[in-house]
Order: sequence, then structure tokens, then C-alpha cells
Amino acid sequence: MTEINKNGIHHHFLHHFLNPESIAVFGASNSFLDNMGAMMLRNIIFGGFPKDKIYPIHPRLDNIQGLKAYKTIIDLPEVPDLGFIILKPNRVLTVFEECGEKGVKHVIIVSGGFREFGTEGKNLSKKICELARKYNIRFIGPNCLGVYNAFYNYPKIQDKCLNTMWIYETPDRGKISIIAHSGTVASHVFWFCNNIGVKIGKSISIGNEEDIDLVDFLEYLKNDPETDVIGLYIEEIKRGKEFIALAKEISPKKPIVAIYAGGTEAASRSIMGHTGAIAGDDKIFESVFKETGIISTNSIKDFFYYLRVFSNNIIPKGNRLGIITDSGGCGAMMAKVAEKLGLILPEFSDELKGKLKQYVPPVANIDNPLDLTFQFNQYNLYIKIPKAMINSGEVDGIIIYAAFGFEEVLDIIKASGGKNYDEFEVSNEMMRGLYLKPIQRLVKKKGVPVFYIGPQGYSNPWVREFLNSNIPIFDLWDMPVKCFSVLAQYSDYLKKINGKFKN
Amino acid sequence: MTEINKNGIHHHFLHHFLNPESIAVFGASNSFLDNMGAMMLRNIIFGGFPKDKIYPIHPRLDNIQGLKAYKTIIDLPEVPDLGFIILKPNRVLTVFEECGEKGVKHVIIVSGGFREFGTEGKNLSKKICELARKYNIRFIGPNCLGVYNAFYNYPKIQDKCLNTMWIYETPDRGKISIIAHSGTVASHVFWFCNNIGVKIGKSISIGNEEDIDLVDFLEYLKNDPETDVIGLYIEEIKRGKEFIALAKEISPKKPIVAIYAGGTEAASRSIMGHTGAIAGDDKIFESVFKETGIISTNSIKDFFYYLRVFSNNIIPKGNRLGIITDSGGCGAMMAKVAEKLGLILPEFSDELKGKLKQYVPPVANIDNPLDLTFQFNQYNLYIKIPKAMINSGEVDGIIIYAAFGFEEVLDIIKASGGKNYDEFEVSNEMMRGLYLKPIQRLVKKKGVPVFYIGPQGYSNPWVREFLNSNIPIFDLWDMPVKCFSVLAQYSDYLKKINGKFKN
Repeated sequence: MTEINKNGIHHHFLHHFLNPESIAVFGASNSFLDNMGAMMLRNIIFGGFPKDKIYPIHPRLDNIQGLKAYKTIIDLPEVPDLGFIILKPNRVLTVFEECGEKGVKHVIIVSGGFREFGTEGKNLSKKICELARKYNIRFIGPNCLGVYNAFYNYPKIQDKCLNTMWIYETPDRGKISIIAHSGTVASHVFWFCNNIGVKIGKSISIGNEEDIDLVDFLEYLKNDPETDVIGLYIEEIKRGKEFIALAKEISPKKPIVAIYAGGTEAASRSIMGHTGAIAGDDKIFESVFKETGIISTNSIKDFFYYLRVFSNNIIPKGNRLGIITDSGGCGAMMAKVAEKLGLILPEFSDELKGKLKQYVPPVANIDNPLDLTFQFNQYNLYIKIPKAMINSGEVDGIIIYAAFGFEEVLDIIKASGGKNYDEFEVSNEMMRGLYLKPIQRLVKKKGVPVFYIGPQGYSNPWVREFLNSNIPIFDLWDMPVKCFSVLAQYSDYLKKINGKFKN
Repeated sequence: MTEINKNGIHHHFLHHFLNPESIAVFGASNSFLDNMGAMMLRNIIFGGFPKDKIYPIHPRLDNIQGLKAYKTIIDLPEVPDLGFIILKPNRVLTVFEECGEKGVKHVIIVSGGFREFGTEGKNLSKKICELARKYNIRFIGPNCLGVYNAFYNYPKIQDKCLNTMWIYETPDRGKISIIAHSGTVASHVFWFCNNIGVKIGKSISIGNEEDIDLVDFLEYLKNDPETDVIGLYIEEIKRGKEFIALAKEISPKKPIVAIYAGGTEAASRSIMGHTGAIAGDDKIFESVFKETGIISTNSIKDFFYYLRVFSNNIIPKGNRLGIITDSGGCGAMMAKVAEKLGLILPEFSDELKGKLKQYVPPVANIDNPLDLTFQFNQYNLYIKIPKAMINSGEVDGIIIYAAFGFEEVLDIIKASGGKNYDEFEVSNEMMRGLYLKPIQRLVKKKGVPVFYIGPQGYSNPWVREFLNSNIPIFDLWDMPVKCFSVLAQYSDYLKKINGKFKN
């Protein structure tokens, strides 16, 4: 089934699905508004796929979106590496067989209307599987959206992506990979991901899994050098034993975050209509996740935020959290949520308190949370205080509120008739060098994650500097506490299985 | 203490704090970077306060931010309606006494360093209170940020606000009012609020409550015509009995959402250092909230989203949720979370199913969640399907996924070499008229809230149309389910206390 151990990742059979040399597209047209395939073809083109290697197949049209179209796959000048089918279900069988006749070995079937749609659909699925066996075809789907690969033929090609999904937005490139039974979870979230700084490398919509399943892709990602963290959206697990063994093997090296969508009555009904899967009891999945070190959630936002913080690969050594704020209120709220999540907010030693006293205004209480009250000494906030906390060894992670965009504040000041601050003509880039780089070096060296909160929001230029530098920043203070708690949970899992830390 | 019942809201003593005719500012300067008051004065000026009614007081400066400054309050040409003090704690006593001598009756003390800062601070607080009694002064604080009032002297004045906070961003105007022991919760969140469409009328940072307390403001908001919904951030309740009686009276008419920040060890420690309050057991607060119909949460995001949906004043009659999606995955996830929150996703009757069948593609399953799969019939999605569901009486609320910005999709299509769609030269404003207005009328008439999810995010122009029209829309699918569940919880409370529905 896989050649991975013999010949490396590039020879894994799934590599062709993510990095096809050529692609035949069945069912795309020029009519974007009544044809889902039109946008999918558009996205393949706009990802930078070599145009002369995209072959639209259409019974009537000669030209589709500027590309020469062929009547059937038999007419193509070569055997395409990948067949991509977005036709009505009753048309799929014929073209699938033609793919087989042509010699195509890899097919993605987008079309819905199979086992999730009653007996007729189930029979159709069965016939597809028979043909696949006959012609030795491997296929993804049916009832999926295909793949997104930000590392298309990387590192040979540096700047192209393959996007077969309907969603035209593409996420910033990073080493988070997604495998999902839902095309929505695999693609509709791209806007959100770009907004909050979730950088995705691969996203795979696996649909009904009549052939290739989640376990296959998990196995592929295990050895993928462009995958550091894995996100799973699960409606069912077809090969439970293999899944557990593989997840146990992967999760200590590449953290896995999962959503299991089944487990309640309406959810299971919905899943039956969606991918036709029979969803099992929530408790079974909970115990599988626990056993394999998988971080799980029912929330789509948690899911992406968790993936985001894991992608930094800075795992705390324990669950002691230090909080620095210029606001008592948000400090108290964070403390409460942290304690409810089982985290510890240690009181600082006298030695550390003595150090911190130098960096805070006289009205501030030296405690944890450390409330700086109002102050503009950015260097203390960004460098001196977190450095003292990290070097003390008394905390395993730090949350800092608030990272205000100084440039924007200066613009306001300039327009307000007060004192001029021409001496502060600093750019955000300079500030990044001054305030973020030094502490990031320490963060990495000591393995103490530092999260920031920037209340001006994700579109603020200073907040974007954090995101561009891949430094975790949040708009408000709920999520960083939850994120630290899952890092601590993962750390705890590593300790249990290793008796020691990672690194 | 209050004249409300005799003379209406405008004669309530707190009205002067929110709508002062003139204001003396102690401790503002031109040095924005080492003087918190500089930005506060700036914000008072930029809110549109009559410039000749702002009196900066400063021992040395003659001109502050373009305004004539006075050496002491005694020198002012009139008795200012409000004194606003942002001085070091040891300077407060003197100017507070001078305010008394001048005849000022309303003072806000921003300065920190009082009871939250040990014995010395406690003594200072005591002296302030003695002076207040002597001169018959009412005051907010100390240790607060003051007030934000989007309805400054409304309706006499239509377009000015009073913002004494440090945060220069101001939220869009609406009828949500906040009372908070934390200036951060009362102001730092304004960017977030604007992003997600939370429209705020009043926001009050009450600090240490040495005189005026949360209950006073709650009483004021009870009769405030510009307040429909109330948000409370609580570190302690000083007058428990009065609070409970008042909350019980208010909450059936104006929903109240609350955060109680105390209840864990580090949180209580943090609160002690913040406002000096002694925070009590979580369970006591939980039972108070339950008894008074207050919706509570520990999450700052939940808090604002809940306030946002309550501000529409459409309360469902029960907890039956209908879900419409073009995505099975997010339908399954919503169903699961909904059921875990105790909501019901009813299976539709055959009659309703028959109606819905007309509006969905043949591959769609007619069920709840209703998964439309891929389709571009916007009129069915926005009008026909929700209308059939609402009119059936089988659901109490509806969530619709996904509201895509059609204009943006058309722009992508135009640039993609496919068929031209010049016939769809529709603006978002036209689409609002076509797709949103008719259903909003029905929503109001039937009292069935409809929430939308727009995955392109809050900055998308089509999503902004929803927000501008005050229609609840969310970027992803966690929050609308939680929001519907708190509406249903509130509805349940109303049923219990009334034996009938509101309206």
C-alpha cells in the first residue's frame, strides 16, 4: 500500500495526489454560478499549475477558462497523473472507467450522491470500487473537495500551490496540515486562518473514504517534512486499530489536534446524511484521544488556535503560568479560567519579586498576575519582565497583556495637539527587532512559550508583525489561556510516555 | 439618593456623570507618553465636548492640547459640573477638597493607589469619603477610567460622545450598556466590539466604588431609554440584597449578562491587588445569577457576543433549533454542540420536509441540520427555506451557514476568464434589500431569531452589511449555537417568572 519506508515521502502513492505532474478535470465549465467545478478549475489555474498540464474534459466545449478542452480523456496527448471528477453521480462511473482505460492511476471524485444518499448511491460506490480494483486506481472521495497543497512540488518549485477546493482564498503557508471528513473544515476556514495567523501547508478533504482513508493520509503526513502539526476533523474512523497505532507513533513528534463531530443524536443523523458514516459514541473517541495524546475539542475556533500554538513547537515543561498585564481585570479573568483549567499561577519568590520591582511603577502590586497598571515603558513590558520571569524558572509559560500598536498611538498623539514625539519615529519593523526578536531567542532556548494579547485586533499593523513573525498573539484574553492549557496537557502526555521531555 | 421616580432619568444624580455640562480635568498634560491623563483629555476633546466647557487644571502649564489651563479650580469662571482627577494618589486629597470648596458636586477619581494598595491607601480612601460627606460630593472611583457615553446629552445633542477613558477607539453606538469593575473590560474591548458588531451606548468603569457603586449605576440604567441590554463585569457586590432585588426587577425587561471574575485563589489575589475587593465563592454568584435571570460566563468573547444577540430583542419561544447549511461538516459540529448545550434539533414534519424539498438540490438530504450541499440559489438560502421553517412553527431559532459575499465571488469570476455575469451587477445594498429585509420583518413578527455565518470574516463587505443592519452574523459556527442557547435560557427564565412570554 505504501512505499514510504523504502523510498522516502516522494515515492508514497499519495504524493501524486498532492503533487500531480498533470491533471485531467471532468465537469468544469465556464459557468461559475451553476457549476461548482468552474471555480475548482479556476483555483487550480490560479495556484500556478503549469497550464499546459491541465486538461479540461468536456463533451461540448472546446475552450474552458482559456484552456483547450478535450472531448474525452482518451483524446489526451498523455496519461494524466491525476483525474479530478466533478460530475453528477450517474456520470461518474463512465468517466472513471475511461480513466482506467487511459491508464490513470490517481483519481479524486468530488461528486456527491453516493453512500450518503441511500441504496442507489451505495451500489454506485460499490461499482466504483470494483473498477478501481480492476484498473489498479487509487482514489480520494467520493463526496469531497480534494486537496490544498501550499508546498506543490516543493522544494523543486518554491511558490506554487495546488488548490482543487471551491474556496478561492488560500491560507498563508506553514507547517500545519489538515485531514478532514468535511470540505468546509478543510477550506472554508481559510479566511479565518489568515486573519488569526494560522499557516497551513496541506489540507485534505477525504469525503466518503471508499478507497483512500484518513489513516492513509495520516501515514503520509508522518514522514512529510513540511508537516509539523496535524489537525483532524473526524466523522468516523474506518481502521481503528491502525489509527491508534499510528497516532501513538506520530503524536509525540507531531502534535495532533482533533474534532470528533459525532456522538449526539442529531450530529450522527447529520453525519449519516453528510458522508454516510455511522458515528460512534463520544466516550470511545475521548478515550482513544487520551490514549494517543491527541488534543481534542468540539470548537472550530479552539481547533485552529490550538494548531496555531503547536506550530511554534515550543512545548512548556509544566503547567505553571505567569501573567503580565497592564489591567487588573483581564488578569483576574485569566487567572480564574487558568485555575479552572487546572493550571497553576505560582506566587513568585522574593528573589523574583525583587527583580520585577525594578521594572514596574510604584503603584503596581508585585504578584502573579503581575498588574503593571498604566505605563508606557515598552522595554520593560516586552523584554525585562518576561526575561526575569523566564530566567527565574518559576513559570512554564507567560501571557502578556497588552501589546498596543505604538505607531498607531503615536499617530493619534500627533493629531491631538500635545507634545511632539519626533524622536519616536520608529517603524513596526524596527520595533519587532527591538521588542520581539531578543525575547523570542530566549523563548526558544528555554522552551517557555510567551503569548501576547493585542486588543487592537488582528488587522492592526503591529499585531500583523507578530503574525508575520509567527509569534502567537490573540485579540482578547480567553484563548491564550486555553492554548497554554493544551500545550501543558501535551507536555504532560510526553512526560508520561517518555519519562522525560521532548528536545 | 436618587430622584429617578419623581423626575425621570435626566434628574438622576448619575446623569451628571454621563452628561456633564462642563468638566474640570486635573492631571492632564501635553506629555502623552508619561501621562495617562493626556490621552483622556484628548478623548474628551475628540468626542465633541464643547471646548469652552473643558477646564484643564495644572499648576504650571497655561495651555494644554489647545485649551486654556487654570492653576487651580478656584480660578475657574464657573462651578464645573464634573471634576475629573488623574493625579498621583498623594495629590488627590488636596484637589478633592478644592473641588468641595468650589462647589463641585460630581467627581471621577481615576487615580490608583488606594485601598488596593495597603493601609496607607485605605486611610487615603477614608479621608476622601469624609471630604465627600462634608462637601456633599458624589464620586466614581478611585482607581477607574471613568465613563463612555455615546448618547451624550441625547436627544438634545445627536452626534457627540463623552469618552474619559484612555482608549481612543470608540464603539459604534447602540443600546448595550456596560458597568465594570475593570476599565479594560469597559474600554479596551472597543476594537473587538467594532469588529464583530457590538454596539455600545454607555460603558462605565466604576473602580473601587468608595461612593457610587455598581448598584447605583444599575438603578440608573433601569430607566435609561438608551439602554436595552446590560453587561456587568463584577469583582464584588457591595450591596448584595439591593443588587438581587434590582437585577430581578430589571432582567425580565432588559437582559443582563455578567462575568464574575473571582472565585479561584489566584483570581481573588489578583482582584485584591486590582480593586482591593474581597471576592467571594463562585457558587454564591452562580446561584445569584440563576435566581435573578442573569446570563453569566467566564469568557470575555462570550460576554460580548451574548450582549450582541440580546440587543436585537428577539427572544425565542423555546429551545428548538433549525440549522441550514451548505456544508454537512459544520452542520454536524453545530448539532453536536447544540445537543450538548441542551438544545433540541427537531426532525422536521413531513409537511415541512415537502415544502423544503422544492428549494434544495436533488442530492440534498431533507433533515435538520438541512445540508443544501453546493448551490448558488441565494433566494432559497436567504428567503424561501428560513421562511418555510419559521412559518412551520417547528423551530424557535435558525442558524444559516454560509452567507458568502456574492460581489466578491463575482469579482473573482470576472477575473477568471469564465462566463460573464453582467446581469448580476448588484450592490451589497441591493442584496440587503432583497435577501435580508424581508426575512428580518418575519423574524421580528414571529419572534424567531435567525443567525448567519459569513466565513469570509468580519471585514468582508457583505458581512459588514449584516452588522450595519444589526443582524447577527458570525465568522464561524461555534458562537451562534452558544448565543442561541443563552437566548433560550433567558426565554426559559421569563417563562418561569411570568408563566408566559415577553411581548
